[in-house]
Amino acid sequence: MARYKLLLEWDGRPFAGWQRQDGVPSIQQSLEEAVERYCGERVTVFGAGRTDAGVHAMGMAASFELAAEKDPREVMKALNAHLRPAPISVLSAQRAAADFHARFSCTGRRYMYRYVNRRAPLALDAGRAWLWGRPMDEKAMAAAGKVLEGRHDFSAFRSAECQADSPVKTMGRVDVERLGEEIRLHVAARSFLHNQVRIIAGTLRDVGIGKLTADDVRAALETGDRRKAGETAPPDGLYFMEATYE
Amino acid sequence: MARYKLLLEWDGRPFAGWQRQDGVPSIQQSLEEAVERYCGERVTVFGAGRTDAGVHAMGMAASFELAAEKDPREVMKALNAHLRPAPISVLSAQRAAADFHARFSCTGRRYMYRYVNRRAPLALDAGRAWLWGRPMDEKAMAAAGKVLEGRHDFSAFRSAECQADSPVKTMGRVDVERLGEEIRLHVAARSFLHNQVRIIAGTLRDVGIGKLTADDVRAALETGDRRKAGETAPPDGLYFMEATYE
Repeated sequence: MARYKLLLEWDGRPFAGWQRQDGVPSIQQSLEEAVERYCGERVTVFGAGRTDAGVHAMGMAASFELAAEKDPREVMKALNAHLRPAPISVLSAQRAAADFHARFSCTGRRYMYRYVNRRAPLALDAGRAWLWGRPMDEKAMAAAGKVLEGRHDFSAFRSAECQADSPVKTMGRVDVERLGEEIRLHVAARSFLHNQVRIIAGTLRDVGIGKLTADDVRAALETGDRRKAGETAPPDGLYFMEATYE
Repeated sequence: MARYKLLLEWDGRPFAGWQRQDGVPSIQQSLEEAVERYCGERVTVFGAGRTDAGVHAMGMAASFELAAEKDPREVMKALNAHLRPAPISVLSAQRAAADFHARFSCTGRRYMYRYVNRRAPLALDAGRAWLWGRPMDEKAMAAAGKVLEGRHDFSAFRSAECQADSPVKTMGRVDVERLGEEIRLHVAARSFLHNQVRIIAGTLRDVGIGKLTADDVRAALETGDRRKAGETAPPDGLYFMEATYE
């Protein structure tokens, strides 16, 4: 058996998310079908993260195993050919150790959230960012983001459907930068709760427009009350950027 | 009569170009229909540049005249509402002088051309950049771009269909920058010949891959021989960035 690691980019708009589900297009199914069309093997492709519908990726890691050994350059080329016209691209393919698993071996995940702060609708970035028409204060957002760094009970920042045993997570750096009319939020952690990044993005949007303060974010953390955090931001602005492995 | 100036962004993929043509969608027709749906007036909307099919814009200027005077903020909001779902966005609308004409008053036009230099297909940037799989040398491209600056006979850099009286144009700065796997070409001039920017982009691609040199670019300029320049680059990577007025 030969195991492979893929690095993936995709436009999340046409997909119901990473995970295979009956009757709707998913990233996982597209990849598994491309593998089967390439070499006839039926495999399961595992991803470092199971992203929601509409969420994009610039650097998702995935793994799968083939019975027959293949040249990784051929794997990349063939999968890209068989993925067409789906907007999924294999950026690289490499051999991986027999015990490598894109999800269970992953020790760090990094996401970016894109806000566009202007009145005009998005033409080039439709479905690719969260449009907000009123002025947003990125400095207030950056300061509130710092409150989330470190080890906390993130009960206020997970969806009601979250199935994680513990709401305690350790957030790495939370950074906010402005690039003209765009604001980018960068978050990293070993792992995330369900909708955690989108609830953080929605909460920091509320800080940006003056509806919440850094103290409110602290209170949300301390009380664990979901209603004290902001709404779940739309998937449009969310990008899975990088999975790290030791 | 009240004249208005618009600043526009669009995704060029679904359009046959700026200019109204029978039976195919155009930016101009979309705008003129949005104006009519908004206030019932049938107008002609003039653009600073008549872009080809598939070419994008981040800052096209356009002008038109209404019999009834309107609040420019209302014009922007209403046109954006009536443009949906076309991927065209009115970034701003303002009153303009009675003699303002987006095309004839324009004294400078700036374009960007985006190459993505990697082996993997484009998922997020499909139709938005020119993908090239072999290494491109952006320093050689930048040096060759300098040859084009200034006043020259650009006969080798215009399409056979170009109807301009004179092939002589004065190019402003030609800049090439690399941003990771992306290379951006920036060109500015008072006006351009038909396909001039795309032929420059195709020629500099050839320089980037070592097929042409800066001396070859000079020879193309001096001989005026279209065959000495590179192919016409696809519209995917081309963006109209800015029109300037005195």
